[in-house]
Amino acid sequence: MSDNKVKVIFQPSGRRGEVPKGVTLIEASRLLGVDIESLCGEKKVCGKCKVRIEEGYFEKFGIDSKASHVSSWQEEEEKFVNNKERETGYRLGCVTKLEGDVLVFVPEESRAGKQVVSKAARDIHIEHNPAVKIYYVEVNPPTFEEPTGDFERICRELEKEYGLKDLNIDIHALRQLPGTLRDGDWKVTVSVWMDKEVIRVRPGKLENSYGIAIDVGTTTVAGYFTNLSTMEVVDTVTLMNPQCKYGEDVMARITFHMTTPDGLKRMSDDIIEGLNWLIDQAIQGTYPPKKKKKAENGKVVKGEDGEPVMVEAPEEGKTYLRLFREDIEDITLVGNTAMHHILLNINPEYVGLAPFPPVIHHSLDIRARDLGIKANPSAYVFVLPNEAGFVGADNVGVLIAEAPYKSDELQLIIDIGTNGELVLGNKDKLISSSCATGPALEGAQLAFGMRAAPGAIERIKIDPETQEVDYKVIGRDAWRKYSEPKDMKCKGICGSGILDVLAELYRSGVVTKSGAFKKEQKSNRYRRNPDNKQPEFVLAWAEESSIDKDIVITQKDVRQIQLAKGALYCGCKLMMRRMGMEKIDKVKIAGAFGTHVDREKALVMGLFPDCEIEKIVGVGNAAGDGARAALLNREKRVEANWVSRNVEYIELTVEEDFQQQFMEAMQIPHMKDKFPHLEGVVPEEILHQK
Amino acid sequence: MSDNKVKVIFQPSGRRGEVPKGVTLIEASRLLGVDIESLCGEKKVCGKCKVRIEEGYFEKFGIDSKASHVSSWQEEEEKFVNNKERETGYRLGCVTKLEGDVLVFVPEESRAGKQVVSKAARDIHIEHNPAVKIYYVEVNPPTFEEPTGDFERICRELEKEYGLKDLNIDIHALRQLPGTLRDGDWKVTVSVWMDKEVIRVRPGKLENSYGIAIDVGTTTVAGYFTNLSTMEVVDTVTLMNPQCKYGEDVMARITFHMTTPDGLKRMSDDIIEGLNWLIDQAIQGTYPPKKKKKAENGKVVKGEDGEPVMVEAPEEGKTYLRLFREDIEDITLVGNTAMHHILLNINPEYVGLAPFPPVIHHSLDIRARDLGIKANPSAYVFVLPNEAGFVGADNVGVLIAEAPYKSDELQLIIDIGTNGELVLGNKDKLISSSCATGPALEGAQLAFGMRAAPGAIERIKIDPETQEVDYKVIGRDAWRKYSEPKDMKCKGICGSGILDVLAELYRSGVVTKSGAFKKEQKSNRYRRNPDNKQPEFVLAWAEESSIDKDIVITQKDVRQIQLAKGALYCGCKLMMRRMGMEKIDKVKIAGAFGTHVDREKALVMGLFPDCEIEKIVGVGNAAGDGARAALLNREKRVEANWVSRNVEYIELTVEEDFQQQFMEAMQIPHMKDKFPHLEGVVPEEILHQK
Repeated sequence: MSDNKVKVIFQPSGRRGEVPKGVTLIEASRLLGVDIESLCGEKKVCGKCKVRIEEGYFEKFGIDSKASHVSSWQEEEEKFVNNKERETGYRLGCVTKLEGDVLVFVPEESRAGKQVVSKAARDIHIEHNPAVKIYYVEVNPPTFEEPTGDFERICRELEKEYGLKDLNIDIHALRQLPGTLRDGDWKVTVSVWMDKEVIRVRPGKLENSYGIAIDVGTTTVAGYFTNLSTMEVVDTVTLMNPQCKYGEDVMARITFHMTTPDGLKRMSDDIIEGLNWLIDQAIQGTYPPKKKKKAENGKVVKGEDGEPVMVEAPEEGKTYLRLFREDIEDITLVGNTAMHHILLNINPEYVGLAPFPPVIHHSLDIRARDLGIKANPSAYVFVLPNEAGFVGADNVGVLIAEAPYKSDELQLIIDIGTNGELVLGNKDKLISSSCATGPALEGAQLAFGMRAAPGAIERIKIDPETQEVDYKVIGRDAWRKYSEPKDMKCKGICGSGILDVLAELYRSGVVTKSGAFKKEQKSNRYRRNPDNKQPEFVLAWAEESSIDKDIVITQKDVRQIQLAKGALYCGCKLMMRRMGMEKIDKVKIAGAFGTHVDREKALVMGLFPDCEIEKIVGVGNAAGDGARAALLNREKRVEANWVSRNVEYIELTVEEDFQQQFMEAMQIPHMKDKFPHLEGVVPEEILHQK
Repeated sequence: MSDNKVKVIFQPSGRRGEVPKGVTLIEASRLLGVDIESLCGEKKVCGKCKVRIEEGYFEKFGIDSKASHVSSWQEEEEKFVNNKERETGYRLGCVTKLEGDVLVFVPEESRAGKQVVSKAARDIHIEHNPAVKIYYVEVNPPTFEEPTGDFERICRELEKEYGLKDLNIDIHALRQLPGTLRDGDWKVTVSVWMDKEVIRVRPGKLENSYGIAIDVGTTTVAGYFTNLSTMEVVDTVTLMNPQCKYGEDVMARITFHMTTPDGLKRMSDDIIEGLNWLIDQAIQGTYPPKKKKKAENGKVVKGEDGEPVMVEAPEEGKTYLRLFREDIEDITLVGNTAMHHILLNINPEYVGLAPFPPVIHHSLDIRARDLGIKANPSAYVFVLPNEAGFVGADNVGVLIAEAPYKSDELQLIIDIGTNGELVLGNKDKLISSSCATGPALEGAQLAFGMRAAPGAIERIKIDPETQEVDYKVIGRDAWRKYSEPKDMKCKGICGSGILDVLAELYRSGVVTKSGAFKKEQKSNRYRRNPDNKQPEFVLAWAEESSIDKDIVITQKDVRQIQLAKGALYCGCKLMMRRMGMEKIDKVKIAGAFGTHVDREKALVMGLFPDCEIEKIVGVGNAAGDGARAALLNREKRVEANWVSRNVEYIELTVEEDFQQQFMEAMQIPHMKDKFPHLEGVVPEEILHQK
């Protein structure tokens, strides 16, 4: 690294690169094509460009803490960054200058451009049978003839009215009970967990209770804030997994634990803090922060004991629901085995070592308070069970959401995140496996990979004769060749452009079947990077970009994509062989990738084995759907434990010919299969090339 | 109060009085007949006279904190009082001078004289079936063929070897599991709670586990530190209930809560801190602190993860068992309803208001950590159920220890503590009640009441002619009239002397049947106190005492004793009437009083209704025995819940003629019954007086 350059990584986009020392964080974000909001044009007056400098990331490479890596605190920042934020590393992007290597987290509210919510809640069918249910009871006050205690008094009524027997009560709920009964004039709404334990008592008759289903991904965490009574998803909230600063994939996290004293606790504390932030966002969303000022002039109807209240905002002629942390009465959690263990502060070391045993498979009911999660103090967290190896509670979530074990069709379910997880089978048998796809298919960790946001290249064509590039960006209908260069304003390549790039590079003869750039090229787009001397191919010239840089795809990028597709294809193939199958009836693709993937290109490029095109479906964030299903239907919890022990886990890497299969699958395109149904759908030259 | 006098109360004895301002705490203790250890003769070199100045007691009367009430910290104290002790108010008694009113707690180790452990563990029969049991298992390490998770691996073995099914595991135990399994070379000892939940895993094969049964009395707290495997009581530890500083009886504590912001939390925190101190004493006792210095030269065999270790003390040729907090794997708790609620930080207000409903009857299983109790982090506290009104878990303890519901005999069980609790019945029916005896029968709160310790008057005779007094003190065989005055060294009256005093005062004509001192007296022993002008009677002259003071019994003392006996007798009588009973088959007296009471005198003085003398038995600390029974036999927990709902609670104070019955019962002696079996046993003149 040259002396006058510093390295910077922006999260959650993962965009990274070197920038001149001394530029501001906003300038650096422009150079690297990261969108940070700046309404005032860097006049230091809007406060929209607030970002967080993450500690720890560079430390582990022996580089000192953030202190010396950014310029010192400025007075202008005080107006926008409060003390608590300041302590956790928040700075204004337009003020803070880069003086060393840093990892920068751009919070959701500071990101410019329309967000593509990759983990939005899907409309799935769930039977209504939540673990936490509410019951309204009216009891008589005690008399000398009938001086029975408060708890037994409501229990008698709960049994008489609703048939609930042998109830327990959590100590926190018990402490609320005497006051609540009397405040509510002996009429109360009781929240009961699993028909077993009273976890909350509220005065009066109430209709609603709330919960949150959380999917802890290696990179992204999503929370589905849900009304347990109506099943409605009130809000979907997301954040970057704060552990990203310790390493980008599961193995890096496990290594951080093994090499850093207190590393496990730090990672656990960080994700718990993240979940608390998520819950905070969810409940704040019930009374939009932007409206806060208005409603302060309005009337706030106060409720007892954290009861939901309506906030009137007369100027808008509206009322808003206002919820509190205590209103979160149930939580479900999914995540891969490493995320599961680290969140629970359980040693993840052995999950990373052959034969990869988890510490526990079975689901857990843990009090939120025991994990430091700030919800209702008596609420439980239901942690879904793990399958085996890295295939954890997240995949169990996928399984209970998609229920392939109820289907006749032979289904292949692919969950592509930072770690790929595969399930194959039907009601007769199910097997699962994981494959190290890495995040390349989602556009992450590529030189110019980015989120699906305005300016991202989503389609591409390369002329085999001239190697000229035509492309389309998100937010602009016209392709490059029908536009002025300066109108393209492109910034990078998103997931849906990735497969296009690989296919086109090959079709146009820029790379060979093995993925290497050909030594002889027709175009000046092919070159060696002046800094690192690695081959790269220019997709868009600096004049077409909004970041004043050539947008390139590097040899390393191509390799990453190849590795990802190879791992996936090889995994699927080996699983089919294990099941003695020739053909799959259905392919379900979970995760953001599944929503945006070009199914034809995916088949042609050999991402997964052949299947009827109309039988390839994206199923969204199925892991999160599973967490929601478990939140809203306790039977799904039983199903989760059953399926986690009845899906057979296959460790692919120990298959005899794994290496050879993997190498073959990395080739472009992987054309061992025939695709008669693709005739006329994809270009001839791709389809019939051998 | 005169300007040059200060008021001081010593706990746990309850001895109180005024002493000259400026005397040391040791001097004050002598003046009031309290025993504080002082091996060095106040040369400030032995550190044995360490006492604790209690905050809060005088504050509630609007008097400022301790700071100004004792002399400032002296350098000499530093050698004996460590920083932590200093923060909690510990001082050396020989150094610290009184400058204002204070409440002083004399810790067990600073009390001089042989202790009479009033709450010692009795040898009762309990079936061995503890809630926490330990199981040894050996498992195979995971392989690729069999990569099952750690928890499921031990579960399979626990089911195969011991038939344990569907086990859960607490998160803390789960965190220990992977390391412990590998440290123990896949051989571990598993602690299982209620055949349901794994709460601890230790490496290797271990034979023992431990628990503690705790009786939280209004004044005294006793802990029975017990080996759950052998059922042996390893140690009995006691302390004064730290809440005493907020008030001496249950109503005073409830009032403190109702009148003081945060009062409930303060009382709850204090008793929890007390329990932690108790546990600390219990585990320290496993390796006697006095031997510490020697063993430090010896070899300490360290154990993994809080495992008990043996400490070798070669100079003594011995090894000691060393336990840690983690080794306390189960806890049971009893206490009256107010103590129960306050400890659990549950509003006790309504227990004190008609119709006195508790917040909960049913037993509770609460994690020790949720109460702030520092034991094994996964351990549960089993809180026994409450009956009704103030008759709480303590009486349920008495019931499951004595099991009158299994008996044909009609039993009256009297538990005399600061609050009196009564049970009457047999296998057909049981009723219970409480009566406000106050602590007078135990010698507390009398002008010269004291513990049963050397120097306490335990027997007394007053000559009806001369009103001369003869008496006997604990620790000296010869009565007063066969001794030199200076050899008596008496200090006060203990519980067993109390009834003697009342009977003799009456027999000798000093007081009337109604309890008033007669206006005309034959002896100069009768006088009016020079300070408060109240009548009093000198039992021992200053020259016979070791505290250079006349030992007197005051009119107020007589009233206190009358109130106590009246409340008790009247309670028993009303309960018998309710049951339609004429005669009781058996009287069981629980508590310290039962151990020391003169049964004949108790009958004659009308403490409780007539019964065959040999059928009156002391049953020791039966409440504590019940806690131990629940600790060692889980069936007793079921029994506790059953009996708590099947004993009928009678609120005596609402009985129509309660006041009249009470007034009658207060007379001395209460002679409505005939005592033919007492002929020749007690003096004629008492027996036949009407």
